[in-house]
Amino acid sequence: MSDPVAGRRVFDLEQPRWHGAPIHPGHVPPGFSYLLHRRHDPQAASPDGRTGSSGTIVSSDHAGTHIDALTHQAVDGTLCGGIDARSTATAFGYTELGVDTIPPIVARGLLIDLGVVEPDGWIGVDRVRRTAEEQGVEPGRGDVVLVRTGNGVHWDDPARYLRASGMQGSVSQWLADAGVLAVGADNMAWDYAGGADPELGINLPGHVILLVRGGVYIIENLFLEELAAAGVHEFDFVCTPLKIRGATGSPVRPIALA
Amino acid sequence: MSDPVAGRRVFDLEQPRWHGAPIHPGHVPPGFSYLLHRRHDPQAASPDGRTGSSGTIVSSDHAGTHIDALTHQAVDGTLCGGIDARSTATAFGYTELGVDTIPPIVARGLLIDLGVVEPDGWIGVDRVRRTAEEQGVEPGRGDVVLVRTGNGVHWDDPARYLRASGMQGSVSQWLADAGVLAVGADNMAWDYAGGADPELGINLPGHVILLVRGGVYIIENLFLEELAAAGVHEFDFVCTPLKIRGATGSPVRPIALA
Amino acid sequence: MSDPVAGRRVFDLEQPRWHGAPIHPGHVPPGFSYLLHRRHDPQAASPDGRTGSSGTIVSSDHAGTHIDALTHQAVDGTLCGGIDARSTATAFGYTELGVDTIPPIVARGLLIDLGVVEPDGWIGVDRVRRTAEEQGVEPGRGDVVLVRTGNGVHWDDPARYLRASGMQGSVSQWLADAGVLAVGADNMAWDYAGGADPELGINLPGHVILLVRGGVYIIENLFLEELAAAGVHEFDFVCTPLKIRGATGSPVRPIALA
Amino acid sequence: MSDPVAGRRVFDLEQPRWHGAPIHPGHVPPGFSYLLHRRHDPQAASPDGRTGSSGTIVSSDHAGTHIDALTHQAVDGTLCGGIDARSTATAFGYTELGVDTIPPIVARGLLIDLGVVEPDGWIGVDRVRRTAEEQGVEPGRGDVVLVRTGNGVHWDDPARYLRASGMQGSVSQWLADAGVLAVGADNMAWDYAGGADPELGINLPGHVILLVRGGVYIIENLFLEELAAAGVHEFDFVCTPLKIRGATGSPVRPIALA
Repeated sequence: MSDPVAGRRVFDLEQPRWHGAPIHPGHVPPGFSYLLHRRHDPQAASPDGRTGSSGTIVSSDHAGTHIDALTHQAVDGTLCGGIDARSTATAFGYTELGVDTIPPIVARGLLIDLGVVEPDGWIGVDRVRRTAEEQGVEPGRGDVVLVRTGNGVHWDDPARYLRASGMQGSVSQWLADAGVLAVGADNMAWDYAGGADPELGINLPGHVILLVRGGVYIIENLFLEELAAAGVHEFDFVCTPLKIRGATGSPVRPIALA
Repeated sequence: MSDPVAGRRVFDLEQPRWHGAPIHPGHVPPGFSYLLHRRHDPQAASPDGRTGSSGTIVSSDHAGTHIDALTHQAVDGTLCGGIDARSTATAFGYTELGVDTIPPIVARGLLIDLGVVEPDGWIGVDRVRRTAEEQGVEPGRGDVVLVRTGNGVHWDDPARYLRASGMQGSVSQWLADAGVLAVGADNMAWDYAGGADPELGINLPGHVILLVRGGVYIIENLFLEELAAAGVHEFDFVCTPLKIRGATGSPVRPIALA
Repeated sequence: MSDPVAGRRVFDLEQPRWHGAPIHPGHVPPGFSYLLHRRHDPQAASPDGRTGSSGTIVSSDHAGTHIDALTHQAVDGTLCGGIDARSTATAFGYTELGVDTIPPIVARGLLIDLGVVEPDGWIGVDRVRRTAEEQGVEPGRGDVVLVRTGNGVHWDDPARYLRASGMQGSVSQWLADAGVLAVGADNMAWDYAGGADPELGINLPGHVILLVRGGVYIIENLFLEELAAAGVHEFDFVCTPLKIRGATGSPVRPIALA
Repeated sequence: MSDPVAGRRVFDLEQPRWHGAPIHPGHVPPGFSYLLHRRHDPQAASPDGRTGSSGTIVSSDHAGTHIDALTHQAVDGTLCGGIDARSTATAFGYTELGVDTIPPIVARGLLIDLGVVEPDGWIGVDRVRRTAEEQGVEPGRGDVVLVRTGNGVHWDDPARYLRASGMQGSVSQWLADAGVLAVGADNMAWDYAGGADPELGINLPGHVILLVRGGVYIIENLFLEELAAAGVHEFDFVCTPLKIRGATGSPVRPIALA
């Protein structure tokens, strides 16, 4: 076996998952619920006193820390690679490009730490590239690039959290051109969700550039504070989307191994 | 950074997730559903033709490949470590020992490959230990020990899948004594679900020995065929339970890095 | 006020609702679940000892005794009245003809009691009309016509229940021509669900004739045993579909007032 | 048959049901969702072009216009009639007093129209009784008594709706003493939800007096504007709770027949 990972420092990049957490209004309903229905009831115990308890998850496939599958976005009814969005849709998910087609992601991870970015605006490519250079980060083919805006500390304050700034289309284009596998940030949409891109004039430019044109996955609502505090800019990144057949996304708990 | 993992072989240990997959009858309802509610409708497109699609997950926290949290089992109303099962239960999960308290699991993984085990019975500790020795597997503190019974090939045949054999309490006791962090197998319950342990006289002995007494997590419905075919017995094991506050388990997609 | 109804005999025409009840396989998932998540926990009591308990319903809009809205069926992408099925569909239901557009149904009800019909076949119009005549039943404009096949006694045996015979298209046509408001029966689909209509060569002929062409609602899984046993053939029928915006059906508990 | 009801004026007393409607925060999650998952997809059409569409209801049993079953409230762990709240609770509902034990309600209905009541306060028994007398309303055994506060017009404004005033315990006691079958109002909780009863010093006094002590059902979120506008104070009231086994409540669409 190679150098074992077991002793390495693990950074947990998932935000806690509960019904009061921030969520994009477009995903409510269903939002997120965890409901405990089976309890440790003595009347249901086995003769040796054992009882089981279990609960029910009701969740948008885009609640909490999650990955967007390529089925999540289309332009003019067409998914990434020219696949028709309509004829591949069924009541129970897509027949192609569902989140179950994403292999476990085990890749070089890179952190571009922008520090604490002001809310309510777009983040341009100059700022992101300059910071990357200062931090020795050079995105390349197959990498997963995470951008910290400092917004992750607001997870307990949904209204504030949702005001996070996000990446202009130029940032997404730069990373798509570099051939990255996936991108991620500590906000709800990677893009700024508050209006049209100042250069491209469209909403959610990264969703088009990355998911539809580029085949690049987007990971949202990452918790990047600890990773940034440790000053780690290059790491092993592991993210394992659940193989939900045909889904447009999956909750994930990515980690960074330093 | 240490030796990067990015180039290593990744084994995907999750079974596909869909509503027709095997599930323990005790977890139906809610079972597992993925329902696609938001489609790429032209009438909902933005001016540039972009549309979004998303769906709803309704799932038992014990559906598919999943990990059991310590809240999943109790004896005489008491969880692992003497915590009262009743006063810690709320409508939305447990205030202690929920699945969100499990850190990302990054550990040495070990595979004990029993080959193809006959269904409908208990698997004793002699068989498991002998096989482990033959395969050079020696469980120790903090390890994750996976046992293959060959049952994973029946995932598309729920009735057959549910007949899988499972571990006698003596197997669980051996591993608990070794101080392992977690165990897992390619069946529904780790234990044999068809009756009482021939030595201990209780149902689901591993659920008591591991979860309640030992504080050892159980991972169920693993897909171990490829790992076994590759003859890998020691590996880096990564499993990241979703931090669903207070839940009794979580769907997971564990991987082995060889 | 008119003659009050309070003292009249009430026949409950709903089957019990629980997760083990018969359901059409096309409506699983989501099927039907009722999950009790909030219990009367002493730790959540108010100072005077009061506690509240509540649960979660997860249900197909076609589970149990229910009414089909006109959005439930289309032919060539067109709903009743020429409405386009596609452009009126949203993630959260239809913008037209949803079940919320059905007023409370308070109408003359008529029972055609066919006795105990053999399972696994079609029921032709001759048999239904002859029985109606013998029983003095003459369907007219605005009536709700219920047909008993005796299948309701099998509600606790889903496999047997689903084998119920159903109405040939000729029966549906006869009732549509009579101008009835709604029809109902004690089976899963009004139609026989086991194949093509012997005369029309199509599946579910009543779903086309009644819902798409006729604008006539269908009520399924009625319990008609007590009404039949009482020999009541004409009655006041009350059925109040829930006003779920845009839904394709609604659970109902219809009653007959004799 | 008695005087048929078919020609009588029907008042629909249900508020529209959708995810944006007011709901008590204690019932979120799960709140209310209707998700359309099966659409009229041409690729799923039968040879004659027929397609089916259906959706999923995810709902608290206390969302929208609904009835409270006697299992909904307990005092000191005891339900109405001295039944133990704990040992009768299961993962899937209560073994006794569930909403499925409520027969179809067909009763004399009475409307006490208080006009438009100021929000944010308690409504005392003097006001209610005086108004009842003025309107010729005399509650008696088996009646269903509805009280209008004018709050129903705010259904599209959840924040305002939830500020509705409600009945002091003295109102509930007066009606319980009269032996009524059920009460209802055009607010979220019958009681005022904003604090303790000024005389009794407890929250939700009616929930204790009616559900726990009196065995009187409560119907919440009624739409009473049309009934009041018509000046109808005595009517036939019909309300048919769904027979959800063991549930603590049920969505309903009650009607008044004048």
